[in-house]
Amino acid sequence: MTAPLVLSIDAMGGDDAPRAVIDGAAHFLKGRKRAVKYLFHGDEAQLKPLIANHAGLSDVSEIRHTESEVDMSAKPSEAVRRSRGSSMWNAVHAVKDGEAHVAVSAGNTGALMAISKVILRMKKGVHRPAIVASWPAPNGYSTVLDVGANVEVTPSQLVEFAVLGEAFHRAVHGEAKPTVGILNVGQEELKGSQTIRDADALMREAGLDMDYRGFVEGNDISMATTHVVVTDGFTGNVALKTAEGTARLVGGWVKEAMTSSILGKLAGALLTLGPLNTLKDKMDPRSVNGGVFLGLNGVVVKSHGGTDAVGFATSLRIALELADSRFLSEIESNLERLSELNAKTEDAAS
Amino acid sequence: MTAPLVLSIDAMGGDDAPRAVIDGAAHFLKGRKRAVKYLFHGDEAQLKPLIANHAGLSDVSEIRHTESEVDMSAKPSEAVRRSRGSSMWNAVHAVKDGEAHVAVSAGNTGALMAISKVILRMKKGVHRPAIVASWPAPNGYSTVLDVGANVEVTPSQLVEFAVLGEAFHRAVHGEAKPTVGILNVGQEELKGSQTIRDADALMREAGLDMDYRGFVEGNDISMATTHVVVTDGFTGNVALKTAEGTARLVGGWVKEAMTSSILGKLAGALLTLGPLNTLKDKMDPRSVNGGVFLGLNGVVVKSHGGTDAVGFATSLRIALELADSRFLSEIESNLERLSELNAKTEDAAS
Repeated sequence: MTAPLVLSIDAMGGDDAPRAVIDGAAHFLKGRKRAVKYLFHGDEAQLKPLIANHAGLSDVSEIRHTESEVDMSAKPSEAVRRSRGSSMWNAVHAVKDGEAHVAVSAGNTGALMAISKVILRMKKGVHRPAIVASWPAPNGYSTVLDVGANVEVTPSQLVEFAVLGEAFHRAVHGEAKPTVGILNVGQEELKGSQTIRDADALMREAGLDMDYRGFVEGNDISMATTHVVVTDGFTGNVALKTAEGTARLVGGWVKEAMTSSILGKLAGALLTLGPLNTLKDKMDPRSVNGGVFLGLNGVVVKSHGGTDAVGFATSLRIALELADSRFLSEIESNLERLSELNAKTEDAAS
Repeated sequence: MTAPLVLSIDAMGGDDAPRAVIDGAAHFLKGRKRAVKYLFHGDEAQLKPLIANHAGLSDVSEIRHTESEVDMSAKPSEAVRRSRGSSMWNAVHAVKDGEAHVAVSAGNTGALMAISKVILRMKKGVHRPAIVASWPAPNGYSTVLDVGANVEVTPSQLVEFAVLGEAFHRAVHGEAKPTVGILNVGQEELKGSQTIRDADALMREAGLDMDYRGFVEGNDISMATTHVVVTDGFTGNVALKTAEGTARLVGGWVKEAMTSSILGKLAGALLTLGPLNTLKDKMDPRSVNGGVFLGLNGVVVKSHGGTDAVGFATSLRIALELADSRFLSEIESNLERLSELNAKTEDAAS
């Protein structure tokens, strides 16, 4: 039997913590074959009875008591200064210490990113980490990054995101040779900002062993025109949230169509017996809940702050897939190629 | 009887022009009460038989023969230099000459914007025009701008967009006092780029008679958290196309649910008898086809390049609503307030 994968969990992060976290961890255990162990960081007095609620959960859980937690509204710089020993800090530190394979938190995103950078440090060759999202597409998922860590980026950072995202997609979504595009407002090379045009030129000149396809547009994300879509954290975050809002709007219309008349109600009742459940699952934003921080010496997964147990369980699934995959070694080999390239460019420039 | 509203139409613009344009114009006439007249600019030999296909269309149509048209891939600067006398140029010029109330084209966006700027000129107080989109929301529409004209913006341009968008929403969507938000990645004032934070401060200091609500996020657009959402043309274009892609993806899932099993098929058959049609209409991207150029001395509506007749008819409806509304006078009075404010700021600075 293989050794259990250890998930280090900030049990106090998120609007409905610690209940949603513990219930989500229990939900995730059901029917799972791969052996898992949880390290819960948080207030022991609160966690113990919640864990005891679920049969079998305490067998795979270890509580690491903490006295403090990071406020959901704390600024990142403040969080780094004040959060030593908090549940979030300790959850990330367990990865650094080699006690856990991956850390998961539904707490304050900015604080989690800042803490992760301080504790785990950036990988060699990476200037800024990015948050990556797996985006529903007709036959699987698209990989989109950055969706929130960097409001402004340089062309070479966008190339780094491409390198990180390509490795992520191969490791997590199993595509041997993912295609990569840069998000723009038109396919013509002359559109878009200078930063994006420079990034496009860099990608073409770089000689990376990557299937780069040039510019893609917003509608290409859901169509998975390329497997990986690279953008700055502002645009990526707006796109992600816009897609969530649109899916919710359309879902509301579907529901309305099935309740607005007798025919609709009858049809809705029939659909509930089968196909509608698949549809509901696909449209459930909780089924894609988990942004992964890329570019650090370790894996950190961010769950939505407002998540419930089902959503948190999805984040745990993503964390487990990453821990169990060749993700970190894929990233390493991609980054080696990038740093060789940077060295060459510097040689040429000197 | 009121005088007919005159729509000046670039009959040669768009992938399926002139057929989609003429068929769309005919489609739009059906069941219309308001008297309309068309000025079609294009190749008379092609247009005449197409118009003759539709009973009654020639009675309200006048063909203005042109020898040339703007290429769909022409660069804006090139288009301005070479397009005098083209169908697009003449369509816009008819508005300038007072012959038509509004111009409509499904041609090259960049060229149409450049030509419109040269012919119609910017309104006093406006530095750059914006393209505005009406976005489906639970109870009507949100107004989003800019969705493609300006890749980069200054804080004061964003304030201008707010002024233009608020007037547009009141005139076209009939809201007496529209609420306005700036698109960002978080509601906290400390998030987002410097440009956006400065625009937020300007909006608050401006003393405009406007119901400004601060920052909104991507998911707020479809929820219509504010009536008007202001952003740069890059982010707005990505958001619009992402929403289109998401709606198409979800639509595909709904279709799949209704064809994947016998129960689903039965439910689908029932829904086709009624509620599904309403849903289809709501999800049809053709039902919101028409970006309006704001900030010019005249109204220009841009239809999707790949539009069919139904989509083109929607653009004509939007054009007609604008021509028939208090839109231009609303914009005037909003801009007066803005220029008073700018004058005050300059006085204070000197």
